Amino acid sequence: MKSHGYAAHDNKSPLVPYSFERRDPGPRDVVVEIAYCGICHSDIHQVRNEWGNAMYPMVPGHEIVGRVTAVGSEVTRFKPGDLAGIGVLVDSCRVCANCKADLENYCVKGFVGTYNAKGYDGVVVHGGYANNIVCDMRYVHTISPKFGDKLAGVAPLLCAGITTYSPLRHWGAGPGKKVGIVGLGGLGHMGLKFAHSFGAHVVQFTTSESKIADAKRLGADEVVISKDAAAMAKHATSFDFILDCVSAPHDLNAYLDLLRLDGTLCLVGLSEKPLPVAPFSLTSFRVALAGSNIGGMKETQEMLDYCADHGIVSDIELTSVDKLAEAYDRVIRSDVKYRFVIDMATLKSSGRISKRKTG
Amino acid sequence: MKSHGYAAHDNKSPLVPYSFERRDPGPRDVVVEIAYCGICHSDIHQVRNEWGNAMYPMVPGHEIVGRVTAVGSEVTRFKPGDLAGIGVLVDSCRVCANCKADLENYCVKGFVGTYNAKGYDGVVVHGGYANNIVCDMRYVHTISPKFGDKLAGVAPLLCAGITTYSPLRHWGAGPGKKVGIVGLGGLGHMGLKFAHSFGAHVVQFTTSESKIADAKRLGADEVVISKDAAAMAKHATSFDFILDCVSAPHDLNAYLDLLRLDGTLCLVGLSEKPLPVAPFSLTSFRVALAGSNIGGMKETQEMLDYCADHGIVSDIELTSVDKLAEAYDRVIRSDVKYRFVIDMATLKSSGRISKRKTG
Repeated sequence: MKSHGYAAHDNKSPLVPYSFERRDPGPRDVVVEIAYCGICHSDIHQVRNEWGNAMYPMVPGHEIVGRVTAVGSEVTRFKPGDLAGIGVLVDSCRVCANCKADLENYCVKGFVGTYNAKGYDGVVVHGGYANNIVCDMRYVHTISPKFGDKLAGVAPLLCAGITTYSPLRHWGAGPGKKVGIVGLGGLGHMGLKFAHSFGAHVVQFTTSESKIADAKRLGADEVVISKDAAAMAKHATSFDFILDCVSAPHDLNAYLDLLRLDGTLCLVGLSEKPLPVAPFSLTSFRVALAGSNIGGMKETQEMLDYCADHGIVSDIELTSVDKLAEAYDRVIRSDVKYRFVIDMATLKSSGRISKRKTG
Repeated sequence: MKSHGYAAHDNKSPLVPYSFERRDPGPRDVVVEIAYCGICHSDIHQVRNEWGNAMYPMVPGHEIVGRVTAVGSEVTRFKPGDLAGIGVLVDSCRVCANCKADLENYCVKGFVGTYNAKGYDGVVVHGGYANNIVCDMRYVHTISPKFGDKLAGVAPLLCAGITTYSPLRHWGAGPGKKVGIVGLGGLGHMGLKFAHSFGAHVVQFTTSESKIADAKRLGADEVVISKDAAAMAKHATSFDFILDCVSAPHDLNAYLDLLRLDGTLCLVGLSEKPLPVAPFSLTSFRVALAGSNIGGMKETQEMLDYCADHGIVSDIELTSVDKLAEAYDRVIRSDVKYRFVIDMATLKSSGRISKRKTG
């Protein structure tokens, strides 16, 4: 199946137009014409090979929404014209204990990422900075028409949304719980919206005074400037759960010290560098430092339906394929409120298409 | 109340005989004539001021067993002649949520350690390298006569025992669970005995080939040499719980990678240095790095009674007050199977008593 989009060809050059082939749709496959694709910080990590596993050419993008254009003979959940979404993974082993428990995101064999990954057949797969995508129906989500004209804001739910929704649900953020959100960016602003929507008392941590008003608008009951040691100390030993959405290296012990007995600090931002943890910060109140990685297909659908019912989408800034370099720079500077989403309609008008082909 | 024992006067010199005063027993107090006191690795950390909080002169020791010689008017659980034990703490606020939940070890105000600590009245308290001790009844444990002539082996249960028992219970080590124990020393050998006794499948991790036979004798179903990367890799993503009993800095990520979905690596050894944690090691299978600090008074008594019923004591080497320097050196070299216990009868014959008094 012919596709075209934007690809990175090495870890330094800007992304350029790129034509490539995807597999022909099989009986279980859904073909989606992509309307919007979010720009996730991990796109930049991978394009720049900061995790050391880059496969070029790379078409990034795993926050994908669009319309179904074709379905295989076994597909009953979708028909052409339906809205659909695809997130961070497009396959998993389907037989391990975690896959069987609807936790494909923790597939023991290792799930197949939406891009910068090889399918189990050895063929490299490409992501959503493209006009279309083909995907096994298990890994495609239905998108409610209730979202109306906010479809672009749905795209980031497929990664930033489920990445924050899943741990907040797993650790029981809700009424009577004091929950912290560290960092107010693409992930953090979704975590804040969810924690507030679930009924927790939510404290937003940020390094930036300028974000206080926005954090309150998004649902924060309190905002703490994390550089203010006295303000931090007031919250010592008081949090049930803190969701840490910062991907740059930072001091975890300052947050561990804010947890009450049996509290958990959960990382969802992925620093490429190891972070130092003081054992006393863990033992003093039997607290835990945990991590969480997106969510399973069942929970992702649950999250999308929850968002449709509660009017939750990502706050976004729409951009175009010819401005990816600028968008990446601004993501690095945290200069976006709060997620860039590429309008894929701009692909049609983006000029020359490279003749380079995959492998 | 007059006491004498052995004290450190700075972070370098050997411990020397020392006479001092303890408070006069009040209506809630129990006076214990100390028969045995274990040597905990944390004694050495504190004597040498490696945690930066040393108060000299310091009489260490928080693994204390002996016989009651007097009780206050309100004390009904003890009478003179009873066996009794005192562990790591001798007071706590008693009114915080954690104290009320029988988790005095996580007292929000901060519990009062048995030594190298100030009571809430500001007076420095001294530990078990001494002939006697006075302690509020809440923090004194009954010791079953079932232990018979193994009383010296009971002393380390008050710290090494409860420190490993509590997290193994909290995280549900038992039948059907695969549990790892890292390090086979004072803590590790107790963790191994408990995990085996609770019915878990127990894997002992050690750097030393020479400890394989002993680990199996103590209850290990398998022993893995942690320096052997291939042997470690065989256990990837398979453990429900790993108890890390090593207090020297070491690589935690190697163990995090062995946990299955929602597994926990719990630290009980207290490295003075922060340890680097790779976020991917936490997020890949939603695992947690946690810590645990001894146990509450109720659980400590439960542990002592469990040990009495199941014939569990620490494997010990008896030593004398005049050989503390040698014992400390051997603890540092891990050259003891598996805990030194000081025979306090040797105090009577240990020569001159210093005339120095507590400030």
